[in-house]
Amino acid sequence: MVREAVPGTEGQETVPARPKRKRNRKPSQKRAGGSGKKIRVIPLGGLEQIGMNITVFEYEEDIILVDCGLAFPGDEMLGIDLVIPDITYLKNNRHKVRGIVLTHGHEDHIGSLAYVLRDINVPVYGTRLTIGLVENKLREHGLLNDTIRHNMTAGDTVNLGKHFKVEYIRSNHSIADAAILAITTPAGLIVHTGDFKVDYTPIYGQPIDLARLGELGRQGVLLLLADSTNAERKGFTMSEKIVGRKFDDIFADAQGRRLLVATFASNVDRVQQIVNSAAKFNRKVIVEGRSMVNVVTTAMELGYIKMPEGMLIPVEEMNRYKDGQIVIISTGSQGEPMSALSRMAAASHRKIAIQSGDLVILSSKPIPGNEKTVSRVINELFKKGADVIYEDAHVSGHAHQEELKLVHTLVKPQYFIPVHGEYRMMKKHQELAMDLGLSQDNTFILAPGDVFELSEAGGGKIVDKLELEPVLVDGLGVGDVGNIVLRDRQKLSQDGLLMVVVSMNRSTGKIVAGPDIVSRGFVYVRESNTLMDESKAVVRKALEKSAKKNADWSKMKTAVRDDLRDFYWAKTKRNPMILPVIMDV
Amino acid sequence: MVREAVPGTEGQETVPARPKRKRNRKPSQKRAGGSGKKIRVIPLGGLEQIGMNITVFEYEEDIILVDCGLAFPGDEMLGIDLVIPDITYLKNNRHKVRGIVLTHGHEDHIGSLAYVLRDINVPVYGTRLTIGLVENKLREHGLLNDTIRHNMTAGDTVNLGKHFKVEYIRSNHSIADAAILAITTPAGLIVHTGDFKVDYTPIYGQPIDLARLGELGRQGVLLLLADSTNAERKGFTMSEKIVGRKFDDIFADAQGRRLLVATFASNVDRVQQIVNSAAKFNRKVIVEGRSMVNVVTTAMELGYIKMPEGMLIPVEEMNRYKDGQIVIISTGSQGEPMSALSRMAAASHRKIAIQSGDLVILSSKPIPGNEKTVSRVINELFKKGADVIYEDAHVSGHAHQEELKLVHTLVKPQYFIPVHGEYRMMKKHQELAMDLGLSQDNTFILAPGDVFELSEAGGGKIVDKLELEPVLVDGLGVGDVGNIVLRDRQKLSQDGLLMVVVSMNRSTGKIVAGPDIVSRGFVYVRESNTLMDESKAVVRKALEKSAKKNADWSKMKTAVRDDLRDFYWAKTKRNPMILPVIMDV
Repeated sequence: MVREAVPGTEGQETVPARPKRKRNRKPSQKRAGGSGKKIRVIPLGGLEQIGMNITVFEYEEDIILVDCGLAFPGDEMLGIDLVIPDITYLKNNRHKVRGIVLTHGHEDHIGSLAYVLRDINVPVYGTRLTIGLVENKLREHGLLNDTIRHNMTAGDTVNLGKHFKVEYIRSNHSIADAAILAITTPAGLIVHTGDFKVDYTPIYGQPIDLARLGELGRQGVLLLLADSTNAERKGFTMSEKIVGRKFDDIFADAQGRRLLVATFASNVDRVQQIVNSAAKFNRKVIVEGRSMVNVVTTAMELGYIKMPEGMLIPVEEMNRYKDGQIVIISTGSQGEPMSALSRMAAASHRKIAIQSGDLVILSSKPIPGNEKTVSRVINELFKKGADVIYEDAHVSGHAHQEELKLVHTLVKPQYFIPVHGEYRMMKKHQELAMDLGLSQDNTFILAPGDVFELSEAGGGKIVDKLELEPVLVDGLGVGDVGNIVLRDRQKLSQDGLLMVVVSMNRSTGKIVAGPDIVSRGFVYVRESNTLMDESKAVVRKALEKSAKKNADWSKMKTAVRDDLRDFYWAKTKRNPMILPVIMDV
Repeated sequence: MVREAVPGTEGQETVPARPKRKRNRKPSQKRAGGSGKKIRVIPLGGLEQIGMNITVFEYEEDIILVDCGLAFPGDEMLGIDLVIPDITYLKNNRHKVRGIVLTHGHEDHIGSLAYVLRDINVPVYGTRLTIGLVENKLREHGLLNDTIRHNMTAGDTVNLGKHFKVEYIRSNHSIADAAILAITTPAGLIVHTGDFKVDYTPIYGQPIDLARLGELGRQGVLLLLADSTNAERKGFTMSEKIVGRKFDDIFADAQGRRLLVATFASNVDRVQQIVNSAAKFNRKVIVEGRSMVNVVTTAMELGYIKMPEGMLIPVEEMNRYKDGQIVIISTGSQGEPMSALSRMAAASHRKIAIQSGDLVILSSKPIPGNEKTVSRVINELFKKGADVIYEDAHVSGHAHQEELKLVHTLVKPQYFIPVHGEYRMMKKHQELAMDLGLSQDNTFILAPGDVFELSEAGGGKIVDKLELEPVLVDGLGVGDVGNIVLRDRQKLSQDGLLMVVVSMNRSTGKIVAGPDIVSRGFVYVRESNTLMDESKAVVRKALEKSAKKNADWSKMKTAVRDDLRDFYWAKTKRNPMILPVIMDV
């Protein structure tokens, strides 16, 4: 059930707030003396990492949550699909949680919502596109009917609990309908930028509401939390519109050739610009890749992508048109192995084969860590005779230094917390804030789990530290893979394993059958029968030795494991996992 | 035994050639008509990849090898230490191989030498620093006394077999003493650049010998093989000297602070510049990291690094000096987990701890694929209170587009093969050569194993394809890990394994003991006893079912594996490796 900015249930209330509040505001008012009231800020993720943005704001008996994202697993998290935040603190304070306010619809801001809502069912607030994308997720998880959603429009305000009032402020990002949040609390006003950039000529909607940020700044902002992703980059990000011009140039030069553009599914503005160029140059549009189809469908339904009638065709109809009349929009701009583009490049896509003369545009930049997989896809495309454009057809969605300075200067916060970024980025962002005049004591680099308390009069302090254990999702399992399992996977991946099975009679201490040895991922066995024969001798000797001394089978297993480990290290300088099993027969 | 450009053994001859040859050269002579004689070029690596550079040149009964490098394992090569080339072709033509000519001393050009020489013991040629680094390797592998080495100086020429004459030409790269090779063959003159850049103000020695390349070009060059690593980058690489100025600036600003510079061990010019700045600003030098110590020692012995007397101190003496009097030069600029810098950042280095106020300089750029590990080290250093400079203190060692154009224009080859690079880079390099006037028919993008035949009159053609299986080195094992083992490691790393052990009586078909189930890397077992109990029931049912039908134990194992696989997929959407063992008791 979606409520369109009408009074909510359970004590929450959404009101079209700005016109009303305007009468109450005194723009030039500054608090005298400073309040001693303390607000708590607890990041449960999103700091010292990219992804999993989720922050707790707590005042007395009220808690609100800003964003509810997931992280993609690091290289060391073998076999893991995704990582969601540890919300033990929220579960322990369940009765206080008043709602979840979302800044925008990216996975790292909404991706763990379906998991969190299972435990803590509270209303969710977001702009229309954000809520549209959230609904796709809730539907997949069977939670759509149980979740109260509220569509917020820039300028809307919602009261959450007794103490919080959240205002949505128009912003720009690499997804439409991004918002900055102004959170009024008894301790003072807090501005949370979410992810943002300053785009004076965005594709959908209006530029970021700088005037409103300036108004808030004059009113007096206690705390700013701002996006640090590009805090290391000088200058300004280019406008999204620049990419549209690049597309026009490419389309104009590519007459007669089939075009294929890969980008992030969530970047609906980018998709709109491909559609715009396709319209100008009379091409039909094919959309490929599951997430691209999902997002484009939702965005078209909600009016965030406008596609001329009859322009979108199913891939099955591609053959009715000439190469020069087609543009395929697909996922895979990060070289994800199972994505549409990767499958086309590897000639394993069932419906589209790369052909000589195709022009492929990667409208993206590799996320750190993805450089090699992206490069692999580019190489494969070139080898199949396609041309590939992989530079200059992208702009970032995150503010560079000059944009950060602009927002800091408008908001003029008393205190500042850099968010969304690795430590190095938060550090640079802190330096930037200090260059603009904040003292080091008024800026705080937090880590996930830090319980940070702030008052205007007393300043900020980390008063406690939550032990967070981010939850790993692997297949259907949520949280059943922990460090022990990961360590085992790591070890298995390096040198494989050997299992040693032997049947013994407990009373006689005699070997009845075996030892049998099975190895996987250790050495190629047909080449190493001698090694296996020698291994069996080592096992027999270990069993005899330890059987003599003691009939404790766990000690016998340890003896087998130790002797084999030494034997293999001397022979191969490898350290496989060794699993001895002794059966009592 | 090192021979200093004196006549070699076994038909080889090294002669200080340029002055003599000069009398025979006719600079403006062009071959009339064109020779029909065919030269074979067979890359055994180094194309479509970064690393493992090794190329066969074959004319009738003579073969020479240019470079003999290794590659570092890709992400998918779990547990592998390094990759060396498949030299089956050389083994099958052992009697023809006359020698190995090395362009420079980087691992990707000399790293597999110790493995190849075990099979094919031929003389090795290289410049002094290259041979010095080779000797370190040979010593480690116990091959020093069995290998004939020849020190070559720019301008030297060596005859190899009846048909080859190789001239060393001075070049520039991110290691001192790099060479371009001019290979005279009956089919025509071949120029192989190795890795190179154009540095007009190098640190050690002289700029690349552009005049000699021009002379060769006027004489007539049949084929150019040139470095493609930076063929995608516009403009010129900066001179190494630029980095020295940056060091001076940093040192000047860092008074009183301890300095730590991480760079490639092999970049002796970079190390020299750190030493130069240290001398100017009165700092003692500490060298950390095994490969850094090795290379610096060799380079100092051979005079490639000049260090003022008493400047180099052991780390144990660091405490005698103030922070502002120390600079530590270390490995780890690529974030390698076991490197000196990574251990310092992780506070696991035994002798050096990062302290607040340290200034760390990463004099490097992450190699694609290493971005995340480098970033992790930077974050750790910042968290420990150090400042980190990770930009602008590095220049590339590979020619950018304008340098490539310069060399192409001087050498003016009839035919061109881009080498050293991924496909995308070779493709761009091919386009660059075509922009300069070569026709597509005269340029060839080869793949490893291509047997390429070229004659001036007949042009080039791939006449055969060697099936190459690069050799994986894992611990002491060379080639005993192949695709099956790697696939097993991959599978184990994703979902772990389950072993199912049961003792049965073959004649009665009855279970005597078990089934026992042991899992690793699958689920955290204490939480999933139910799952394990259910698993045992699945196993029992599978055994009963298949035992009834047939007493074939391999079929019984298959039944256990299949039923468990389906059970786990339905329960967990995971697919662990399942290893059933049935013991006959």
